[in-house]
Amino acid sequence: MEKSILDYETLALDEKERALVIIDQTKLPGRTELIHLKTQEEIWDAIRKLKVRGAPAIGDAAAIGMYLAALNIDEAEEAAFLQRLHEAKEYLDSSRPTAVNLMWATARMERAAQGAKGQGVAKIREVLRLEALRIKQEDIDICEKIGEYGLTLVKKGDGLLTHCNAGQLATAKYGTATAPMYLGQKRGYGFKVFCDETRPLLQGARLTAYELQSAGLDVTLICDNMASSVMKNGWVQAVFVGCDRVAANGDAANKIGTSGVAILAKHYGIPFYVCAPTSTIDFDRKTGADIPIEERAPEEVTEMWYRERMAPAGVKVYNPAFDVTDASIITAIVTEHGIARAPYGESLQAIREKSGR
Amino acid sequence: MEKSILDYETLALDEKERALVIIDQTKLPGRTELIHLKTQEEIWDAIRKLKVRGAPAIGDAAAIGMYLAALNIDEAEEAAFLQRLHEAKEYLDSSRPTAVNLMWATARMERAAQGAKGQGVAKIREVLRLEALRIKQEDIDICEKIGEYGLTLVKKGDGLLTHCNAGQLATAKYGTATAPMYLGQKRGYGFKVFCDETRPLLQGARLTAYELQSAGLDVTLICDNMASSVMKNGWVQAVFVGCDRVAANGDAANKIGTSGVAILAKHYGIPFYVCAPTSTIDFDRKTGADIPIEERAPEEVTEMWYRERMAPAGVKVYNPAFDVTDASIITAIVTEHGIARAPYGESLQAIREKSGR
Repeated sequence: MEKSILDYETLALDEKERALVIIDQTKLPGRTELIHLKTQEEIWDAIRKLKVRGAPAIGDAAAIGMYLAALNIDEAEEAAFLQRLHEAKEYLDSSRPTAVNLMWATARMERAAQGAKGQGVAKIREVLRLEALRIKQEDIDICEKIGEYGLTLVKKGDGLLTHCNAGQLATAKYGTATAPMYLGQKRGYGFKVFCDETRPLLQGARLTAYELQSAGLDVTLICDNMASSVMKNGWVQAVFVGCDRVAANGDAANKIGTSGVAILAKHYGIPFYVCAPTSTIDFDRKTGADIPIEERAPEEVTEMWYRERMAPAGVKVYNPAFDVTDASIITAIVTEHGIARAPYGESLQAIREKSGR
Repeated sequence: MEKSILDYETLALDEKERALVIIDQTKLPGRTELIHLKTQEEIWDAIRKLKVRGAPAIGDAAAIGMYLAALNIDEAEEAAFLQRLHEAKEYLDSSRPTAVNLMWATARMERAAQGAKGQGVAKIREVLRLEALRIKQEDIDICEKIGEYGLTLVKKGDGLLTHCNAGQLATAKYGTATAPMYLGQKRGYGFKVFCDETRPLLQGARLTAYELQSAGLDVTLICDNMASSVMKNGWVQAVFVGCDRVAANGDAANKIGTSGVAILAKHYGIPFYVCAPTSTIDFDRKTGADIPIEERAPEEVTEMWYRERMAPAGVKVYNPAFDVTDASIITAIVTEHGIARAPYGESLQAIREKSGR
């Protein structure tokens, strides 16, 4: 029998083999394949080719990548060692230059190394090992706490709906929007989960449906435009989504289509919860209007995935990657430091103080 | 330069060639190919294989098919001729047994033939020719009137949004939801049209985007889950959709996703118009709850169109073909006999009296 996704972490450090072990996400949903990456080149390639993806998971992978690089740097002299480590950082950062978590993790690793200056190369390597494991463990702890808080918002047998993949595959374990589902699963909550396929890139169909099914949850895949019917049928008691960035007023940017799901939930009187590690709350953005929205290639809509073109050649396409959900239609924002509710200007500040940021 | 879709009818009788001429819709959006069908077998095959589709267009094609069958029936004796004509009716009806308009059109053709009994085979053939052309012309007139009424609801330069294909390709000309767009186009309204791709079968991408582009309209294709963003951006001043069936209270069944678009439109304060020939109003259904919803094969969601499976094997799928939009969120229902507004129980009855049904 195949193992459950909950039997793995999405990524782990194999200390004996000196390797980063990841689930190769480009093989999903067809095959669950664990691969071992030993060099910084292999890790660079895995991040670049989306074998590992999702902001927290990329950060974790890059942190472990920095430690493995340190193991492979053959310099006994500290200054030369730190110089080579800095080169490894810049190299890893170049694998996905827009991934904020990637630079955040490698910078934190470099600071840890600098902090141990004067104690010798062996000690610095040990500091790097501990820091990488700490970064990954913090990710897991955050997800678990979001799961615990989220679980207080639902009851046994509830129908839940999610959009895109804010799942275990995007973190080291549990995910954010999926964390309440996994913790509930372990405790016999018997959720029924509906999973939007999430066009154009189908992360919901390819990743979320896969991982929930692997963990033994009762998951049903729907096209994005079926969410209204599923809600009208009375099958959904709560919506959980992740987010890429939350503005200071609670507006939340997430995968395209999230705002539509929130509006449907409001119409049908269903609570809509955004699961957000406090690191995604951007207090420098007053509202969602300050969050830039990436527009992506038309081919994702007109031909990618398909056997042949599914739209006329030359047709104009609007293909935004994200949208902003107004704070006014978000029931609550679930963080690792508690649940924030409107007015978010105040409640998010209180969360900030709790988090010590 | 390629001709505009408005230079054709979706289907026409070529009297010299004794053929039904259609745009082969299975070749779209790649190629605009007119094919000539001379025998009832060819027409049966074209309906079966969806070379012609859409309720009104199928009815028109079957009516012309009955006339062409009558031309090919080599019987001088009336009773034998009518018997053979009845066999042709049953044969054509078997091409798509669930298409109500198909049976409606062939039954009307047979009644016309019966009405001319005693006047000889040549006269009956002429009656059939006129009846087929009348059925098609009525379809065109209905669409044109819906277009005229719809056009009173918008103004020059408006952004319009539509879902699925209630277009010219589903009728002989103009379509229903697209009729205001085409008439406006002829009169320089300069609409900007947004077209939902309409998963899982992508009729919006394959057919609506194609035909609007062909007619020179400014059309932009979006994934279904992008409608909320497009509306939030202020780009949509009205939504026009078709419908499969309207209940006596105004609840409207249409392609899956329509109810979600209506909820988004209401949220953003955008009028939502259902374009409905009075023949689609079913006064025997009190509310939308009385309208059965077809569920279709999971493979349409998980693998159809795709190069490879895009969801895990064995995942549960919910794949309803239609949904019901509550009358409470429909701004108006546009028919060929005028515009009905809430309370629909009364306004649709008034339309019924006007229509003489």
